[in-house]
Parts: sequence; C-alpha cells; structure tokens
Amino acid sequence: MPVITSVRTRDVRFPTSLELDGSDAVNVDPDYSAAHVMLSTDGGETGYGLVFTAGRGNELVVHAMESYGALLVGRDVDELLADLGSASRRLVHDSQLRWLGPEKGVAHMACGGLVNALWDMRARRAGVPLWRLLAGMSPAELVGVVDFTHIRNAITPDDALGLLQDALPGRAERIAELERCGYPAYTTTPGWLGYDDEKLLRLCREAVRDGFDMIKLKVGGDPADDDRRLALARGAVGDGVRIAIDANQRWEVGEAIERVTALAAHRPYWIEEPTSTDDVLGHADIRAGVHPVRVATGEAVANRIVFKQLLQAGAIDVMQIDATRVAGVNENVANLLLAARFDVPVCPHAGGVGLCELVAHLSFFDHAAVSGRIGDRVIEFVDHLHEHFVDPVVVRDGRYAAPSAPGTGAAMHEESLRHWEFPDGPGWRDLAEGAPR
Amino acid sequence: MPVITSVRTRDVRFPTSLELDGSDAVNVDPDYSAAHVMLSTDGGETGYGLVFTAGRGNELVVHAMESYGALLVGRDVDELLADLGSASRRLVHDSQLRWLGPEKGVAHMACGGLVNALWDMRARRAGVPLWRLLAGMSPAELVGVVDFTHIRNAITPDDALGLLQDALPGRAERIAELERCGYPAYTTTPGWLGYDDEKLLRLCREAVRDGFDMIKLKVGGDPADDDRRLALARGAVGDGVRIAIDANQRWEVGEAIERVTALAAHRPYWIEEPTSTDDVLGHADIRAGVHPVRVATGEAVANRIVFKQLLQAGAIDVMQIDATRVAGVNENVANLLLAARFDVPVCPHAGGVGLCELVAHLSFFDHAAVSGRIGDRVIEFVDHLHEHFVDPVVVRDGRYAAPSAPGTGAAMHEESLRHWEFPDGPGWRDLAEGAPR
Repeated sequence: MPVITSVRTRDVRFPTSLELDGSDAVNVDPDYSAAHVMLSTDGGETGYGLVFTAGRGNELVVHAMESYGALLVGRDVDELLADLGSASRRLVHDSQLRWLGPEKGVAHMACGGLVNALWDMRARRAGVPLWRLLAGMSPAELVGVVDFTHIRNAITPDDALGLLQDALPGRAERIAELERCGYPAYTTTPGWLGYDDEKLLRLCREAVRDGFDMIKLKVGGDPADDDRRLALARGAVGDGVRIAIDANQRWEVGEAIERVTALAAHRPYWIEEPTSTDDVLGHADIRAGVHPVRVATGEAVANRIVFKQLLQAGAIDVMQIDATRVAGVNENVANLLLAARFDVPVCPHAGGVGLCELVAHLSFFDHAAVSGRIGDRVIEFVDHLHEHFVDPVVVRDGRYAAPSAPGTGAAMHEESLRHWEFPDGPGWRDLAEGAPR
Repeated sequence: MPVITSVRTRDVRFPTSLELDGSDAVNVDPDYSAAHVMLSTDGGETGYGLVFTAGRGNELVVHAMESYGALLVGRDVDELLADLGSASRRLVHDSQLRWLGPEKGVAHMACGGLVNALWDMRARRAGVPLWRLLAGMSPAELVGVVDFTHIRNAITPDDALGLLQDALPGRAERIAELERCGYPAYTTTPGWLGYDDEKLLRLCREAVRDGFDMIKLKVGGDPADDDRRLALARGAVGDGVRIAIDANQRWEVGEAIERVTALAAHRPYWIEEPTSTDDVLGHADIRAGVHPVRVATGEAVANRIVFKQLLQAGAIDVMQIDATRVAGVNENVANLLLAARFDVPVCPHAGGVGLCELVAHLSFFDHAAVSGRIGDRVIEFVDHLHEHFVDPVVVRDGRYAAPSAPGTGAAMHEESLRHWEFPDGPGWRDLAEGAPR
C-alpha cells in the first residue's frame, strides 16, 4: 500500500509592504506570505497546500504543519483519500493538539493546510479540478466529509443531506454554465489604504474598464480620508458600480455604526469586518444599526461554530469564507451548508497569496451542488502574486474562469518558492543587502 | 539603561497520561506540559512565564514565544515595566503577527506567557507577590494596563475606573483578611474520567477529610457511567459538599441539556464546558435549559471579547478565567472587570502545570481590589506537579494560602526543567528505553 512519506514545508514571503499593497486600517504593512506544504507518497504522488499569513509568524504555521504532518506520515494514502472526513477529524481532534485551539488560530490553520493538501492529492489522482471533484460527489459522500460537531443545533447530517439532494436537479446544467461563463468577481486592487488618491482613481477607472461591476475600498483610518476616498471612487466608477467598504475589525461596535452611517450617502454596498469577528452579538447590533448597508465578515472567523452563531443571530448579510483560515475543504463545505441553510449568500475573501486560486473552487462548487445560486454572489479578486502559481486564476471581464487544471490550485513554481523562501532566499538576501528591513 | 537580553524557552512535559491523571471526555490522554520562558536583562534581572498545554504541540507555543520574544529583545526594561499596558498591546497587536489569531490560539497564548514573564520581573523587582503588586496599584494605573479594544460596548475605561474606585474602601482590610484566612478552593483530584470507582471513592473521602466543601467530577462519557460515578461521589461526600461536573465541551447544545437534566437528581453545583466555548448562543440556550444547575466556562475561552458576549448574553453563571489561555495578566484584569460589571462570580480554572500557582494571584487580587467579594467564589485545585515549582501553592483545610513569594509563581526548579525537557531530558529518555511511547 502506498503511504505518505514526507511533509515538505516552505516559509515563503513576498515583500509587499514595500509598496503598501494589501495595507488596511489594521494590517498596515503586510508582507504577504504562504506557509506552503507538499505531501509526497512512495507511489510518486504529491499534494500541495498552503496557509496565507501577513509575514512575521509565517514560520509558526510552518512549524504547526510539521507537527500535525507527523500524524500523516506512514499512513495509508488510499485509506486517507477514500475517507477525507475521517482524515480531517483525526487531525482537528487530536487529543493533545486540540488544546492549542481548540479549532482556532495557528493550529487550526495548519490543519487546514494539510487537509487541503490531501484534497489536492485526491483531485490530482482523479485528474480533475477540486470543484469538479466535489461537484461529482453524491450528497451522502459530501455529508460524510463534514464534521458536524458543535453545529448540530443549526444543521444536522439529515438537514445537509436534504439540502444537497434538493440541489441535485440542474447540477449538470450549472456545471456546464460555470464552465462556459465563469463566476462573478469584484476587485479590491484599487482600494488599499496606503495608496494615494491619484493611484486610487487610476485603479478605479481601470477596474471599470476591465469589466468589474463591484470594487472594494479599505476604510477605518481618518474619517475625513474615508469620506474623501469614497467620494472620489464613487465619482470615478459612477452609480452603476457597487462599492464595498472594509474596516478590517478596526472599530468598536458603536463606532462602527456611527462611521458607516456617516458614509451612507456614498451608498456602500457592504461594510466588511466592522469590528472583531469574534463579536457575534456586536455584528448583530451593527447590522441593525447600519441597515440598508449590508454587513459582511468571515476572513478571520475561526471556525464553523462562529459562523453558525453569526447566522443564528442574524448578524450578517454576506458570509465571507476563507480558504486557509479554517480546517480546509471539509470545514468550508460545512460553512457552505450552514449558509445555504440560513439562505445567506457566500462571497469569499480572496487576495493574499493563493487565496483566489484556492477559494474559487469552493464558490464554483457552491453554485453547482449546494446553493445553486449565483446572482447575489461574487468572489473577491486581487491582482497580486498570481505569477507564482502553476495554475493561476484567470479573471476576464469581471469574472473568474472555471478552474480546469487538476488539483486545488495550491501548487507554486519551484523557482518562486526558492527565490522568496524566508529569510535565506535570493529575493530576501538582495533586499537585505540593498535596504535593511 | 537595562535591556532585555534573552528569551530562554523550554519545552517541558510530564508523562501524566501513564496514570490517566487529567483524563476527561475530550482530553483522553494528556501529558501535562509547559512552554516555559525566562526573560533576562543585562542588569541581572529575570522574569518567568509559562503556558500550559496537553502535550503534543507544546513545541508550537515554544516557537511562538520565541517569535514574539524577538519583539522584546533589546527593549528598555524600565520603560517596559513602567507601562505594561503598552508592552502588552505592542505584542498582541503586532501588525503582522496578529493575522495568526487575531487574539486566539497559539499566538495569543504565547503573548500571554511573555506578558506574564514581564509581570513576574516587575513583581520580583518590587519584592512582592503579583497579587499584592496589583492590589497596590491605583484605579487609574489598573485601567492603564487594560486593552479595551472591542469591549467598549460592555465596559469603558470610565466604567472600569468607577468600579475600581468603588472597591477602594476596605482594600486594606480585605488584603489583611486574605493574608490571614486565604481563599476557598475546590478539588478536581478525585474526578478524572480514567480513574476506576474505587479510586474515585477513596479520593472523594480524602477530599472531605482534607477540608474541601466542593469537588468536581468529569462527565461526558457513557451516560450510565456518569450517573453511577456521580451517585457514588454523592454517597461518599454527603449532601453538604458541592459537586461540580465538567463535560470538557463534549456535547452538542441539545444533548447537553438532556444529559445534565438526567443527572439533576444528584444536584450538581455547576455544569462546566457543556459544549464548545466558542458557542456563546449555545451556552445561553443550555443555561436556560438546565436551570437551576449553574453553567460555567472559560478555560478555553480565547479572549475578553468572547467573555464579554457570554456575559452580555446571560450565558454563564460562573466565569472561569485561565492564567495562560489569554494574553496574560492584562487581559485577565479586563476579564475580572467585565465579570464585576455583570456581577458574575469568577471561579478560576486551575490544575495543569502551574495554573494553580499563577491563577491564585488573580483571585486574591479580585477580592482585594475589584469585586470585593469572596463568598460565591472558589479556586480550582488539583494536587499535581506542584513539586516542580519554586514557590508552590499551599492549600490547607480547603483554602489557598495567600502567595507570599515575590513574582507570579511561574519559576520552576531548574532540575525539573532539565529532567522533563522534551524529548531529550533524562525523564523522557528513561521512559523511551523502558516502554516506547
């Protein structure tokens, strides 16, 4: 029997803080980074996974993937891949490691990277992109990958089975439509807080020209700046383009309501992360206070249990799943099912390193086999760092093209991994010699 | 000026799983462990901190303390110790590292270990135990150490100042009373799930003989076992001794209500961790469903924002702070203030490695300077591993004696650190040679 023989990790960082790409009210100077992992078997198979981080601390996710990875080495690959529900639960619920979360932070993200690498291996073995693999699974198989622990008071396995069975009619048509037309995207490229007004305006106009009908702006700094930037953007894109705003958890609850209300004249489409994403009750208060502006969150939501409560409390209008915050594909299938159960649209967070590549599969799968809906949904797009991926996303005319290469999208070019390995890759050595950081 | 010159970390583990000490429905085989840290200065000062974990993964907290510790090396010690509010915020809100939580899991626990080591150094410098240091600070100074981010809709700095000022009268008397009489304790020593009935009975009788008027039993395994064990314990301790039960997050929400209701005839004092501690709304439902049994939680509550919601939602009767889950003394002062604001008693989680030593200071401080209440409060005690500490807690007649040695209690014997360092200490080598684990 083939077994997992190695867990190869890499600490890869890109010096994005030099240009303030990715800068917002809280993440003022991120160096977009990936804790990258490659699982190998003695049968010659590989599976890739990654976890996105903001720079310092990327090494901690690398260490955590090595610690959890030790639980996979020597395990029968066929058995693992045939039952990825059990494989995931084995990692997430390890009787000693779970103390470190439970199910949150570094440990949980590392589990997600490894679980996703197993899915990558399975999709490669099947010769299909992840979303097609998932969209080809029966309702019962899909229910089998979900860990219902601590969410059964919102959705039971039977509820989930019912939802998936209800979505069976039309699966094939929706898959064909997705292959043909892709999935709507919005762009955050214009909106980073560290960009000056001129760059903001130029990028807003480019976004419209490139076919986007929605953009996103970072807010949460000086109120007058937020107002001016939003007015400029509205002027540049016109009334027909949606503008979401994103405070990256910068505000207190009352402050969020005041600040969003002050910007309401510019008709923001949603306010994203108005406060701590741990604050379910706070989000509910904010949602009531800023209506009709929608409330969105999720990129920092630790797990399905917090998403469950955001939905139960009626605290969000938009659920933003993230590909590398939770315990991988399995937990995101749970999140998609929860969203469908509460009839809340899923608009994934992306950007960072590889998040567009990874998360697109989940939205495509959602439309094909879970919600069957697409009109009220949109995937974030940021035009950064895609050149480092073997199968970069393709976004044209404001839409993601359907991923077609086998796997999850996490494979990176060996040359990129080598060049930007931290701290000793040539890219970082050159920077250190030029201008000490 | 003296500066921090080194951050010495140690991965120390004890083979508690051999005897099933510490075993419960979820933590079935813990090896009680500490990620231990020693900060040193070029002025010859030291400060000790630790984070408790359950074994595997202890190395991840060690790595994280090294990563965060790099932010302290070279910093002016006088400046750090004079403003521990700023020192804590500098670690917790580091613009890149915070992505790894934010404020939860491995990263947050590591911040807590370092923040506590700074408090240890400050208390040693002052020549007083931590609780006396805190109880000697003015209300304004105490407010200054608290990070009110994301809790201002429950408690403002002015609210906190008012609470602390209201508790000023009687501080000196309460301190004198604490020095004289100590603080009530309860014991979990009898109740581990891996102990057989005979051991359970023997330890229950010993607890009563030793002067405890409250014990705790682990539940959450087979319902019939829970019922039998609780009946046996009730028989052994009599009607006058409170018996708390603890499910360690084992149950779903509805299941928790059913299971506790089925045990109600044995009059459990509280049900602890009936479900995921992330589930604020679930705890509120459970509390409504199991009344008059109290609901307690906290040892796995990630941060003050989750505690805030548990209080806002009326989801808990008892708040169980933990000394090494959150970002150290500062965040626990915030937690104590929140509890006082909502008039909920604080009964700390302890046990593990060093948690009794550390957390006692917080309860003593709470009574002296925050809540001014003690009658409805009790500190957990487990009679494990205290021999490894330089200043072990003293528990007599069911009460913690007031800590008297300078510092926080985190200093461990060098011989213990050396012997049980994982994986190469002599203790682990001997075990590996005797019986491979």
